[in-house]
Amino acid sequence: MLKKRLNELTENERKALFERSTSKSSVKAFEIARSIFDEVRKNGDEAVLVYSQKFDFYDGAFEVEEKELNRALAEIRIELKKALEESAERIRRFAEAQKPQEMRRITNCGWVKTTPIRRTGIYVPGGTAAYPSSALMTVIPARVAGVKEIIVCTPPNASKTLLAALAIAKPDKIFRVGGAQAIAAMALGTQSVPKCDKLFGPGNAFVNAAKTLAAAEGVAIDCPAGPSEVLVIADASAEARLVAADLLAQAEHDENACAVLVSTNEKLVSEVEKELNKQLEGLPRRAIAEKALRSNGALLVAESVGEAATFANEYAPEHLELLVKKPDELLQKIENAGAIFLGRWTCEAAGDYAAGPNHVLPTSGLARAFSGLSVESFMKQTTVTKLDETELREIEKTIATIARAEGLEGHARSVEERFK
Amino acid sequence: MLKKRLNELTENERKALFERSTSKSSVKAFEIARSIFDEVRKNGDEAVLVYSQKFDFYDGAFEVEEKELNRALAEIRIELKKALEESAERIRRFAEAQKPQEMRRITNCGWVKTTPIRRTGIYVPGGTAAYPSSALMTVIPARVAGVKEIIVCTPPNASKTLLAALAIAKPDKIFRVGGAQAIAAMALGTQSVPKCDKLFGPGNAFVNAAKTLAAAEGVAIDCPAGPSEVLVIADASAEARLVAADLLAQAEHDENACAVLVSTNEKLVSEVEKELNKQLEGLPRRAIAEKALRSNGALLVAESVGEAATFANEYAPEHLELLVKKPDELLQKIENAGAIFLGRWTCEAAGDYAAGPNHVLPTSGLARAFSGLSVESFMKQTTVTKLDETELREIEKTIATIARAEGLEGHARSVEERFK
Repeated sequence: MLKKRLNELTENERKALFERSTSKSSVKAFEIARSIFDEVRKNGDEAVLVYSQKFDFYDGAFEVEEKELNRALAEIRIELKKALEESAERIRRFAEAQKPQEMRRITNCGWVKTTPIRRTGIYVPGGTAAYPSSALMTVIPARVAGVKEIIVCTPPNASKTLLAALAIAKPDKIFRVGGAQAIAAMALGTQSVPKCDKLFGPGNAFVNAAKTLAAAEGVAIDCPAGPSEVLVIADASAEARLVAADLLAQAEHDENACAVLVSTNEKLVSEVEKELNKQLEGLPRRAIAEKALRSNGALLVAESVGEAATFANEYAPEHLELLVKKPDELLQKIENAGAIFLGRWTCEAAGDYAAGPNHVLPTSGLARAFSGLSVESFMKQTTVTKLDETELREIEKTIATIARAEGLEGHARSVEERFK
Repeated sequence: MLKKRLNELTENERKALFERSTSKSSVKAFEIARSIFDEVRKNGDEAVLVYSQKFDFYDGAFEVEEKELNRALAEIRIELKKALEESAERIRRFAEAQKPQEMRRITNCGWVKTTPIRRTGIYVPGGTAAYPSSALMTVIPARVAGVKEIIVCTPPNASKTLLAALAIAKPDKIFRVGGAQAIAAMALGTQSVPKCDKLFGPGNAFVNAAKTLAAAEGVAIDCPAGPSEVLVIADASAEARLVAADLLAQAEHDENACAVLVSTNEKLVSEVEKELNKQLEGLPRRAIAEKALRSNGALLVAESVGEAATFANEYAPEHLELLVKKPDELLQKIENAGAIFLGRWTCEAAGDYAAGPNHVLPTSGLARAFSGLSVESFMKQTTVTKLDETELREIEKTIATIARAEGLEGHARSVEERFK
């Protein structure tokens, strides 16, 4: 695990730290995804079935029936059911509070109208990367946005807990279809799966390649997803055992997860190192966390919180914890992060499940240009203009002059005709 | 030109009307763009120079100097300069009014922080598709958003008016580079052209393919652009000569432009047809407009404004004019459109140059899922959470229960550790 002063990092160390493993798809993955797309376009459900048999050894029904969902919900522990419902309720409340008003006046003649996307497709991964919480985090904001038809595709091996979460989130249709064939089905439409206007959700290299192909077809897609990350900025006021616990909570996700500490206090860094070793001992996913820390972990010492903030802005982490005495002050210096957690009581795990804000966030430095998922991701804006005679008269000459300079005489005339 | 009752359209007519020519890139265009990407990645400026010589017959300096811009501004007619400045001012005013506040409180423990993207790359096409107004519409919102470094690439054949518009919009750097090599340079960075966080702007099939490749590299991109479109909904209160003038203003853009009228009044439709023929006579770009009307024009009769609205929502036009007696009422039924123009005095051309809202809008039905360009396109959101002891205690069990159900013991411990 890299342990160094920030200003002593070599160019190579810096580069290794910044170049995080992304889910960038290989040319090979693109080729496979493209052939799946072509097949689904040609043969619809039949093609989907062939790929389900081939990749998932599944040839049962596509659509998940309501009674299966209800059964799953009835079968999970009551405590877990309550927790999922509480989480759902808090996600819903935040999305509702964030939802933009339908008409917003901007100037005396201009408005922005915000409307839900009509039909969205959400991919919910199965297998080891299956998080019931992510099913809540994606379906609920879509519902709050007012999406009329929420389609979910999830691999045939969906767990009972995942189905229970879906029973709570209540999408309109759920299909047992995984991989690139799920993306192709939602992007192109088949006999069973309706064509969607926008696609959401993380997945493997084939899923990601398929989403890029969907985008090239004119289907909107969300921000690409990579391994999870946390950057903790901590000063002398932070407690080493909490810093270590939070780094481990990130490192346990998978071997490519990133957990980085930047501290203005060298003593804290040493203590965190000790705590990491101590807490690692009893951790069920110890092997994964250790590997993640070794490859993408770092304990760095900054000269000042200002230097730490500069580093954070360049690193643009998915999650940023400010475990410092004055987190609100430091917050003002932060430009690039997926989500920010302020102070001792705001551990990142709270954001994963129950704080309310979405946990689907830009990774791999994408926070430099992307927002996390929100109710707004399921909506789009339309500008509305209404001029009266005086207002049009005021800009008549401006319009006509530029239109003619651009060689668009018809544009100029469409204005002038109104004053004849 | 298709002329029919809406409810009598055959499946094929409907399909032909809806399937608009997009700038979807062929596999060939992708291959060429990919080889350009690979070369620029390997050889930077040198590769860009080779492509500039090959495609644009240009081997001069990359960067446009300020004195060139000032010269262009000094050389255009004073009337045009004033018009561009007035247009710029109105775009700026709208963007400023629409700019979100930096911190917005959502719930008692959650905020949304909105910050500018640090470095954005804007492609401004040259040649026949060069619109000085588009240079204003893209650069000015970026400036208002607070983007620190605005990079523009434009082909070496940029007109004097285009340079004058850039002199007014004031990006930080302008490079005379066109095509896929411009996108590759801004996506990857070269010795001269800085690597950008997000890319904007329309272009030909190679530019679009290159933008898709940039997206696969983790560079954000804007909504893909296609030919311009207008849908006019008009009732008996509309004047045929204005409807015709507005349809022609759209049709004159290019041969693939779409201009569709849906009217509840058959008499108006006949009058519009006559007016189209009359007004076409004197139109400088008559040949283009005629071809566009023939291939993608339609005069349709609806039973009711409700039926017209349903059609509009399915068509999802870039521009939608509501030339009806009660446009505000009809507006409530509209879900899918890039921009909406209400009533007699709000011609679409006003929106192209001077109303204020952006004229870079989703085409080809993309308004179903995409918003037009705005100051928000140059910014991104970060959620901020701050819990106190009581608030964390309230959700402790929810977090720990779901975390353990997901097999993430470290997540549960990171919360529980805080109460030890």
